Order: sequence, then C-alpha cells, then structure tokens
Amino acid sequence: MDKNNQTTWAESAATLVAVAAGRAPADLVLRNVQLVNVQSREVLDWQVAVAEGRFAYVGPDASHCIGPETQVIDGGGQVLIPGLCDAHMHIESGMLTPAEFARAVAPHGTTTMFTDPHEIANVLGLRGVRLMHDEALMQPLNIFTQMPSCAPSAPGLETTGFEISPEDVAEAMEWPGIIGLGEMMNFPGVIAGDAKMLAEIAATQRAGKTVGGHYASPDKGIPFHAYAAGGPADDHEGTAEADAIARVRQGMRSMMRLGSAWYDVESQITAITEKNLDPRNFILCTDDCHSATLVNDGHMDRVLRHAIDCRCDPLVALQMATINTATHFGLERELGSIAPGRRADMVLVDDLKALRILRVWARGALVAEDGAVCAEFPHLDWPEDARATVNMGKALSAEDFAFAAPEGANRVQAKVIGVVENQAPTEALTATLPVVDGVVEGEGPVCQIALVERHRGTGAVVNGFVQGFGYEGPMALASTVAHDSHHMIVVGTDRAMMAAAANRLGEVGGGVTLWADGAEQALVELPIAGLMSDSPAQEVAAKATALGAAMEAAGCSLNNAFMQHSLLALVVIPELRISDLGLVDVTKFELTDVVEGHE
Amino acid sequence: MDKNNQTTWAESAATLVAVAAGRAPADLVLRNVQLVNVQSREVLDWQVAVAEGRFAYVGPDASHCIGPETQVIDGGGQVLIPGLCDAHMHIESGMLTPAEFARAVAPHGTTTMFTDPHEIANVLGLRGVRLMHDEALMQPLNIFTQMPSCAPSAPGLETTGFEISPEDVAEAMEWPGIIGLGEMMNFPGVIAGDAKMLAEIAATQRAGKTVGGHYASPDKGIPFHAYAAGGPADDHEGTAEADAIARVRQGMRSMMRLGSAWYDVESQITAITEKNLDPRNFILCTDDCHSATLVNDGHMDRVLRHAIDCRCDPLVALQMATINTATHFGLERELGSIAPGRRADMVLVDDLKALRILRVWARGALVAEDGAVCAEFPHLDWPEDARATVNMGKALSAEDFAFAAPEGANRVQAKVIGVVENQAPTEALTATLPVVDGVVEGEGPVCQIALVERHRGTGAVVNGFVQGFGYEGPMALASTVAHDSHHMIVVGTDRAMMAAAANRLGEVGGGVTLWADGAEQALVELPIAGLMSDSPAQEVAAKATALGAAMEAAGCSLNNAFMQHSLLALVVIPELRISDLGLVDVTKFELTDVVEGHE
Repeated sequence: MDKNNQTTWAESAATLVAVAAGRAPADLVLRNVQLVNVQSREVLDWQVAVAEGRFAYVGPDASHCIGPETQVIDGGGQVLIPGLCDAHMHIESGMLTPAEFARAVAPHGTTTMFTDPHEIANVLGLRGVRLMHDEALMQPLNIFTQMPSCAPSAPGLETTGFEISPEDVAEAMEWPGIIGLGEMMNFPGVIAGDAKMLAEIAATQRAGKTVGGHYASPDKGIPFHAYAAGGPADDHEGTAEADAIARVRQGMRSMMRLGSAWYDVESQITAITEKNLDPRNFILCTDDCHSATLVNDGHMDRVLRHAIDCRCDPLVALQMATINTATHFGLERELGSIAPGRRADMVLVDDLKALRILRVWARGALVAEDGAVCAEFPHLDWPEDARATVNMGKALSAEDFAFAAPEGANRVQAKVIGVVENQAPTEALTATLPVVDGVVEGEGPVCQIALVERHRGTGAVVNGFVQGFGYEGPMALASTVAHDSHHMIVVGTDRAMMAAAANRLGEVGGGVTLWADGAEQALVELPIAGLMSDSPAQEVAAKATALGAAMEAAGCSLNNAFMQHSLLALVVIPELRISDLGLVDVTKFELTDVVEGHE
Repeated sequence: MDKNNQTTWAESAATLVAVAAGRAPADLVLRNVQLVNVQSREVLDWQVAVAEGRFAYVGPDASHCIGPETQVIDGGGQVLIPGLCDAHMHIESGMLTPAEFARAVAPHGTTTMFTDPHEIANVLGLRGVRLMHDEALMQPLNIFTQMPSCAPSAPGLETTGFEISPEDVAEAMEWPGIIGLGEMMNFPGVIAGDAKMLAEIAATQRAGKTVGGHYASPDKGIPFHAYAAGGPADDHEGTAEADAIARVRQGMRSMMRLGSAWYDVESQITAITEKNLDPRNFILCTDDCHSATLVNDGHMDRVLRHAIDCRCDPLVALQMATINTATHFGLERELGSIAPGRRADMVLVDDLKALRILRVWARGALVAEDGAVCAEFPHLDWPEDARATVNMGKALSAEDFAFAAPEGANRVQAKVIGVVENQAPTEALTATLPVVDGVVEGEGPVCQIALVERHRGTGAVVNGFVQGFGYEGPMALASTVAHDSHHMIVVGTDRAMMAAAANRLGEVGGGVTLWADGAEQALVELPIAGLMSDSPAQEVAAKATALGAAMEAAGCSLNNAFMQHSLLALVVIPELRISDLGLVDVTKFELTDVVEGHE
C-alpha cells in the first residue's frame, strides 16, 4: 500500500496484467464513452477496465475484462477525461480543513491537489504541516503536500508563530505524502544566495522532489535569472504573457492561476494560443479559492472552462490540468492520464466545452455524481492546541488602535496602503491626514489598519492606514486570516469597534468578524489555527457570503474584498504591507515609517 | 559530487546564483549564437554563462557574468543546441568499450547515452554490468546504465553465461549510475504474469526508476495491452506508424530508432508529421550502431538529420533527442536543455537542417571540435576474467558441424532461417536438401548455421540451415557476437572452414573471423567478453569494414550483413532462430525440429 491507502502499481501489476489479458475480471468496466487521451492528444472511442483502483485496460474493447462481479457502466456516449489536478493551492484559503475541501471539490472533477499548508505552518509550525498532511492522506482524493518553505516569508520583516528550518524541510521530505517544497517566496533571499533558503532547496532536490517557486516581481532581468539558477522548478506569480514565456524559457513550468481573486490565465495563455509555444510546460492551478467559489462556481472545472473560453484548444487545456501537472511532479506514471497502471481517476463530462461534471471516480471509486459526493471524507481528530491559537495576551481597547501623531502636528503626510481591485500588489500611496487630540485620523477613503499580534500574547498592535475598500460609517473588520504570518488584521473607521472585533476573535478562537453600528454584523468562525473550519463548505460559504454582504453594507463594493483584506500583511508582494514589526516597503524589502512629514 | 564526477545542482547552487546575479564570474560565456530553447520550442538570440559544469545564466546578455578569468567564446552566429541524448542503446553493438564508444560519438554531438549492457550481462552476469557501469562513469559524457532485465532473454529457449535475477536488479538499483531497467524483452513472460519478470519491474518502480520496454510483436491487441499493464514505460520495437501511435496511447513513450541496421524513424514519424499527435512522447534513439557507422555517418546527429529529412520540424526533432528523453528518465532538471542549473551540455552546429557538428561541450568542458575529440576518455583496467570468455572445451572439427540425416533419407525437408535484408525478423522457410553420406548438405542459397557453446566449455554444437546471405564457394563466418546469449554463431558452406573459424575465435578470445578458400580473410578481435575491443573506433571500424569487404567477396551483398549474422540467435524476435538448445520457433516461443520430413 502506498501513501494514499492504495496499492502501488508494482503491488497490483500481476492483477492488472491478468485483467488486461482477460484472465481475471475487472472491478469496473466503463464503455460507450469518448475517451480523452492526454498523451497522444486525441479523443478515442475507447473503453476502460479498472482493478485495485488502477486502470488495467484502456483500449477499443474491454469485453474480455468483464466477469460476473464486474460493475459495467454505460457512459452514454459522454466524454471521459482524466481526473483534474490542481498544481498549486492552499487548502486554508477555502477556510476549510483538507477533508471538507476535498468534499467540496470532488463534485467538480478535481481528483488531485498539490497543497502547500503554508498558512498553518506560520501558526503551528512543522506540527501544523503534519496535521494537514495526515488529514490529506485520509481522503479518497489524492492530496499531495508541498512542504512550506518560507515561514516567515520575509525574515526580519515579520514574526511568525513558528519558523520553518532547513532541518524541518529535510525531515518532511521523508513523510509519505510530501511531494516537494512549497513556493519559495523568499525570492530576494534566493537571489542573494541566502544559505537557509538554498539549504531548503537542496534538501528537496536531494530527495528527488519538486521545488515550488514564487517570483512575485515584474522584473525579468538579472534577479529573475538568478532566482531561476537557484532551483525553483515552477512559478505561478506571472500575470502577463511575457511572464509566462520568461519562466518557460528558463526551464521552469509556468503555472497559470484562476483563483477566487486571481485572474492570471487570460493574460498569459496567449503564450500558447497566439505565440504558439510548446504547451507542455504550462500548467493550470487555482492557488487560492474561497469556499463560496467552490460551492457556486467550481474548482479546476472552472479553471478549465475559463481556459477554453480564452480560446485554448480544449485538449491542450486538459493537458494543462492533468498530464502536464503529473509530469511536473514526477507522477506521470502514477496519475494524470487514462492509461494502464495509473490511478483510476476519471471524470465523465457532457462535452469538452461546457465541461459539466457528471460523475467523478478517484482510484476507481465513484466519489461524486451530479454535484453530490458519494464517498467518505474522514476528519482528523484535531488536537486542542490546534484549536486554541488566538492568544492576544489581553483584551484590547480603542486606545490600542490610536496612531499617535508627531508632537505638535496638525496634519501628517502618511503612507497609505492602496488596495487595487483584483490585483495582489498594493500601491504605496500618500495622504495628508488630520490630527485630533494628538491622534492621526483616517479621512475620506483612508481608514485605519492594525496588525494585532496573536501568537505569543504580546499585546502588541501596529497601526497604519489603508484605502480602497470604500468603507463608510463606523465599522471594523477583523480577521485571523492574515497572510502569511496570520496575526490579526483589523481594518476600520472606528477604534472602539476595531477593539471589539479583535476581542471577539479572541473569544471564538479565530475567524472573521464584521462590526458596524456598534454590533457584530457577521462572523465566520475558523477555530482550527484561526484559519479553517471543519464545517462543510456550504455552511462556511454561507457565512462568508453573509460576511461579504455585511462588508458591502458597510460600503465596500470591491471584488473579493475579504481576500484583499487578508493579504494586507503579505510582506512578500509589493508595494506596501503591514506586519507585527511595522509598515513594510515590499519594493525594497524593508520597514518604513508611516509618517513622512507633518505640518 | 554526483555519480558522474560533477557537483550536483544543489552543491553548485550558491555559485550558479552568484554568477547569474553578476556577483561571481562564470567559467565560460558563449555569445553570438542562435540558441535553441527546447522547452518553449523557439530559437533565441541569447547567451549562456557556465560555472562548475552547469548553466548559470541563459538569457539575452551574459556580460555581467564575465570576469577576468572567464573564457569568452564567440559562436560566430551559429546555432547552439542542447547536447544530444541517445535514449536507448547498447554500447557493445559498436564492438567498443564505453570509453572508446564515448570517444567516437562525442564529435557527433552526443553527450548523453542511456545504455543497456545486456550483451555483457549474458556473458559475465552482474559483474559484467558493473564493469560497464564503472567505465561509463569515468567518461566526460553522461552515460547512464539501464540494468539488463532479461538474461536469458527467453528462459528455456537458451542458456546464457550468467542469469540476471530480481535480486540482481534490486541490488543494481542502488548503484550510482543506474537509471532504470533495460528493455523487458521477455514480453510473453510479462503478459503471462511471470513472477520473476514482474519482480524485476517492481524493484525498478520501487526505486523510482524507468522501466524499459521491448515488445517485438506486430500484435496490438490484448497481449499488447497486457504488456503495457505490466509497467514498461517505453518501447523501441515499433516499425510502423500504428505501432508508434499504439504505444503512446498506452502512456508509453515511443522510441523511434535509426541504428546501423534499424530504419524505424521514417515509417513511424508520420504519427507526428501527418497524424499530428502530441510529439512529447516520441523519442529518438539508435539501439545499435556499428563502429563504422559512428566513424563514417555519425550517431545522434545522423538520427536527427534523418528525422528532419523525413519532414519533421527540426525543433520538434531536437526535442525528441533532448528534453523528451531527459523527461522520460526523470532528468529534465539535470540535462537535456540549455537552462539554468542543468549540466552544460551543448553543441554548436552550422544550421538546423544540415546539422554539421562544430563544437561539443559536455558538463561545461569542450570535448570535441570539428570532428576531433579534445578530452580524455579513460579506460577501466579490465580484469583478466573479462578478457578470457571464449571457452569451447575442445578444438572443433568438421564433423562437429555435420547435420546427421534421418536414417535412410536421400533428401530432407528442413526448416531454414530466412534472413530478410534490413529487417530484424527472420522468415521461417522450408527447403528440400540433399543427403550425402548420411549428412544433410546446404544447397543453392541455403547454407549451414551452427551455434557453438562457448560459456561453459561443453563442446556442444547445434546445427541448422540459413539462407539469404548469398554466400558462394567454400567459406565460413564465425562470431562470438551472437545476440543475446553470445555463444558463437558460425555460418558457412564448408564444414572444415567452419571448424577453423570457430577455433580461431577460441584462440584470440573472441571476435569475428571470415574464412574462405582455406584461409582467414578478415578478423575483428573483440577480446573483452568476446564482444568489445578497447581499440579506437577507427581501428575497429577499419577491421569491420575489411570484414564486410571479405563477406562481399564471399558473395554476401546484404546490407549490414554482419548484424544479420549476429542476430540469428536472438530468440525473442520472430520467426525462426537458433540457440544452444536447438532451433527456436519465435512465433510460438518453443523449440522446434529442423527436419520436417524426408524422402
């Protein structure tokens, strides 16, 4: 048995050969389908026979594999595609545990995910990664874990709950479900030859596993080449056609993402559709999906439909969500295609453009049909310390959120984090703000932001300013989802409510809460690590939707506003962010003062 | 340092990053070239910088990588391609040791070979494989060893010098230069679920390495599917477009070969050029090349030129000899492209059609220029027991080659092995032959063939009949190159000369000798295992050419006649072969009588 409770090809070979040869019956035969062969890039009028969770026979006629006990399914002439693979993603972004995330995506045809539990690593360290890894291996879908590389993401610019060391990485490489290193976000570190970052990469390469990249800069000059020389094998931070091309030319795979708030497929896929580059090194992924996206729009099926809408050949798009991904992770003979020996992960769809998901099998078992799951998605018994991670040290008050003006100032010129709709980078803005009773006040589009320390109970609060959300009236939004160190981000127009919102999250063990008019308007409880709920996606999505409605009622009409909120502490993406250490200029990777001057 | 005396990417990463970033000087910068990027499938006006034998920078301008000690080379506007990879081949077929083979192919742009020392495994067992493996790792080119899977190739149908067991395979998987399992020729065994063959495959899969296939049958029905279910990852035995397509559709890579006597590219490459299948799963290889081919025609450069002559897009053809191969063996981040971190294997050529090889670098060092080598190709100190492998037990006489007729017969109906020019399969023919003094005599096109036992000194000689060589007059050709068990094959029209030729090989420790008119006309000494010479390719080629001329003088005008001779004991390729156990019907995989009847 391998790491996913499935026999290996080697263990099943005698059975698979016997079934293919007609000497033993298959468990399942599927016929009357149009089979997409992603190796040859063809559609074939073929049949499949499955045994021990793997494809035994894939060819024109599986009649000889049928015995009295064989389940024979008529595919009704529909299209059979390989199970879809998400090449890079964070389960925590769905605010769901691995089990509930898997349950949510199975009906969308996703049968394999490459997940980087980077968020929990920041909160609970290697132990948190192991908990995610262990629940992942309990699922009927294939969930491979990428060992988080960067906790903290930007050393010296933030303080995480735990740190990940090269020794942690080397240790994790021995775990059964680890497929490689998670996105190496500390790209300045790699470029500078930082010994710790190179040691993590080396530990991964020595284990024969795949090093994930994350080069979040538009500069494709010398620093970019230095990063590529350091070893990352892929990158999903490209946003323009030239980014995708540049990565592939360096021998990296270009992962193009369509997440809940990432729209990087349309702008990059022209590298294939118009520039006609070899598509084999392009891959589709989601990176981050909210539970509401999973419930309402889909998962990898949504990405595929979008890629096809962008005029990508459906078969090429399918390759980018199946065999390209499998090959990238050294799994091309294990999954990602409908071929003998591979895990019998397959999806019946209505046609190659609409891609309506009819039935989904993973490792030979039906896991979803017509949008409903029909398999168990077992929960880990999450330990108490993973459920009690919000430690603020004290109850906060309005005063903790007051930004003291320089002595004698009437107005200050302050740096303001500018949120840009549908983009991860922020803008570094400046505003002139009034001072009242020695405290700098937000004004007009500018409201307050605070980073509340929540890992070590220091009681520290870092204050600053943000604009772009559109909030009006007294309100506050607090969240323990606060990439990447996952302290607590509070944005608000009213300091008392900011304190109330923060304290509320301390009470419920983490999540997101919106306060307005002196009362809580919406709450999403995320008791596991302050990041995830172990409730079903529908429930979490409903609460998240209610939260969004409350945010809108508070004046915020930004697309994916909560994600923008949760990324304001992400000190690896330009231009301006906030951390527990202060305001961070991410164009220079250094701390910077909020106040530029005063009058 | 890795298995090829080259630091690993992980070990060199700090240097590579520093060079790419412009903080440290490169060892070598190559500029003014048209660089073929096999990942994106483009030609770019780019430059490369090399350090510690790996590409550090690959981009538009490497000026920042140049220091006072950097060697700067102007490529004169020529085309720079990745070093060429031969995906499956037998060094022994060149009658050369790994060192001399490498020296012969370096000027042809081959920098990586995946070699299956299957021949020596039959003669010297695991110890012979290790000797080949060890000399391979001493070379400046990359020579990976595929652990031979089938000695004997067809158990029960021949007796080899040594046998290879699943335990041998498991042991070899730990050696530094082993890349996978060599061609699984016992395809009937796999199809039948033979435990030993499946155990060898399992040992390879467990080690995460690539299982080589060899399905030498035109039947693409149920047996073919059963073979694919057994685990072989590639196959190079296809000869028709439908064969290539069938393999790729099963998730195997189709290796198309152009060897000295294999012409399987033109007939299969239409799967790409006309049927427009995704080319990523097609690979070029040589399988078997004579030293004369290497000296006169080339190696992988010859295959590439041929593929391009067959109207394959030159960039696609290049991919099939570089990145496709590297990906197949799990080495895509180690070699096979000009990209950061990879071994700096590169070839300067005049243009993408003529493909004249100007300069060749392997691991950053110039190994050949204008057809001449400029590197050392060190020899192993081959032990005495590897040089004394022809053990016939006794001196043979003409009587040993007499085929006794059935009692009272005047004429017999005999099965005759029919040699077909330029094809590996033979035809099972029948001839009516005269009996003189109780002995069946060859007549007209039919001459004698004998298999002389040479591993254990049993003194056994198996006699039979062959036609198709065209020999005239009294002659004999004896060879210890006798795939796959490498006893000795003697073909002749004169029994005394057959004995003289066989005895001569016993004298010189193996090789090939042609006798005519009572005297030796040509001799190629192959003292190492009776298979290889440690002389330079030019010398061996000259002797082989003289042998060919002598064969022609004896009446044989067949193309690649010696290869045909050496394959007559290859009891895995239909239809009729000879072994130390008798005549073999390879359509049924069983021994068969020579005499069908008499009158």
